[in-house]
Amino acid sequence: MIRALFSAGDPIWPEYQTTLPPAFAKAGLSVDLSRDHAPDTVDYIIAAPNGPVQDFTPFTRCKAVLNLWAGVEDIAPNPTLTQPLARMVDPGLTDGMVEWVVGHTMRHHLGLDVHVHGQDGQWRTDYPPLASQRPVTILGLGALGTACARALIGLGFPVTGWSRSQKAIDGVTCLSGNGGLRAALTDAQIVILLLPLTNATTNILDRQTLALLAPGSFIINPGRGPLIDDDDLLTALDANVAHATLDVFRVEPLPAQHPFWAHPKITVTPHIASTTRPETAALCIAENIRRGEAGEALLHLVDRTKGY
Amino acid sequence: MIRALFSAGDPIWPEYQTTLPPAFAKAGLSVDLSRDHAPDTVDYIIAAPNGPVQDFTPFTRCKAVLNLWAGVEDIAPNPTLTQPLARMVDPGLTDGMVEWVVGHTMRHHLGLDVHVHGQDGQWRTDYPPLASQRPVTILGLGALGTACARALIGLGFPVTGWSRSQKAIDGVTCLSGNGGLRAALTDAQIVILLLPLTNATTNILDRQTLALLAPGSFIINPGRGPLIDDDDLLTALDANVAHATLDVFRVEPLPAQHPFWAHPKITVTPHIASTTRPETAALCIAENIRRGEAGEALLHLVDRTKGY
Repeated sequence: MIRALFSAGDPIWPEYQTTLPPAFAKAGLSVDLSRDHAPDTVDYIIAAPNGPVQDFTPFTRCKAVLNLWAGVEDIAPNPTLTQPLARMVDPGLTDGMVEWVVGHTMRHHLGLDVHVHGQDGQWRTDYPPLASQRPVTILGLGALGTACARALIGLGFPVTGWSRSQKAIDGVTCLSGNGGLRAALTDAQIVILLLPLTNATTNILDRQTLALLAPGSFIINPGRGPLIDDDDLLTALDANVAHATLDVFRVEPLPAQHPFWAHPKITVTPHIASTTRPETAALCIAENIRRGEAGEALLHLVDRTKGY
Repeated sequence: MIRALFSAGDPIWPEYQTTLPPAFAKAGLSVDLSRDHAPDTVDYIIAAPNGPVQDFTPFTRCKAVLNLWAGVEDIAPNPTLTQPLARMVDPGLTDGMVEWVVGHTMRHHLGLDVHVHGQDGQWRTDYPPLASQRPVTILGLGALGTACARALIGLGFPVTGWSRSQKAIDGVTCLSGNGGLRAALTDAQIVILLLPLTNATTNILDRQTLALLAPGSFIINPGRGPLIDDDDLLTALDANVAHATLDVFRVEPLPAQHPFWAHPKITVTPHIASTTRPETAALCIAENIRRGEAGEALLHLVDRTKGY
């Protein structure tokens, strides 16, 4: 019998209590899933970064910690976590992210807000350029960035992608390094942020890099709040940037009195761009436990030196 | 020397005066393009339905009338028009339509208006189902309906399509006939109208058919205004239909005092879902004249008995 400890907030426990057992059964695993195992009996920890387990030291026989979210910046640096750490790469999470990114890209591309706000009897017949005339830049070409790039290419947008290490993706102009970042942002019309949060990516959009964007450009951030310098963004919105749609923030929920809420050129969405969906996430967790038990390599292991 | 008469409103003449001559040259054609040829000297008429030529009788040697728009309901019934009539199938028009349809489908699917309107400091964390759980029905599987179906399938939506005559499109559940219409609309969550306007399609969405849609459903009409019975739509918006986004109307521009403008569950857009783009449309016109001169069949000929 494998012992799995579920270490996450109360609100999500009922969903996983329902979806994990059938996923384990489907993977041929016999798992005792609980929120209360004695630490030294636990084989796997299914963890949210803000879950009850913050000190991993007593989990002496734990083979792996399986994170419930894609982002690991709040768990990877934990000095007590010496076990292998796997990120969540949930197909439902990827699909949801692609849909949110496509929705907001089309919203800005087509200028939908003019009509959503402007139901005033005025017949405004300006029409937008075609997607083929609207270059999009995606910072971050991991699972999420790559999936978004593919969807946007399918809709006709020319897509440039930037990542720390050079990638090759069909149909995407792939750039890397500092010079590549400058090229990716120069005259960009729509910039989508899907980078992991590390020391190297914090404030990657700051005064200098924001100034590179095209006049009338749009920023879409479903990645992590600290990828953008908040004050520099406010400055850029008075200059070349037309609008920013932000799903992630330094403090969440974003306080009601934060200037982003009232800013006419910012749309706040409440960290809903993508969410781990228990039905599909449970399958990923079961697959990684199956791999662990079979002595196979775990999927989506975090490189602790890179932080993602 | 081929004589082509341009019969459309003043505002669009400059764009076509610029884009048609290079398109003719590219097709190897020597064309005298004018707005003032003597009727009995004209070989081809490039026509908008509301253009100056309404009586085609004097155009005794005209080989074909090339419509500048996709819709032909205002020109096909003209009893003086005995020449072959071709519709515009412009790749720019198709791409623009796909983008508008994808944009508004994603907008309703994701519930974007809640956030566009709701920048009030409230952190609303409800998230939508995945596209794979949101069936879309497209009425009309011509060039535009088929292209929209392909794009929505690419984004993960299950797509059902309905057309007068049975079609077969990869990945689309294709239905036809009256029974098929009932099946296509029953429990539909998003309905997109891309039918030609004919006697058979006028008011195809009326009290009976609107009642078939799922509770909380969305209607998107970039096709033709009279496809929907306006009063029945208003009734349905008090019942099962959550929102209608309408780009086309019985009278355009939609009068400022029309109840659609102020209705909280209707978004009016000003017939911008798709527009013929002169650069690409000019190439289509040149190709059809080349075909006419070479004795080849014209593209996109209108079947006058069907009306499209």
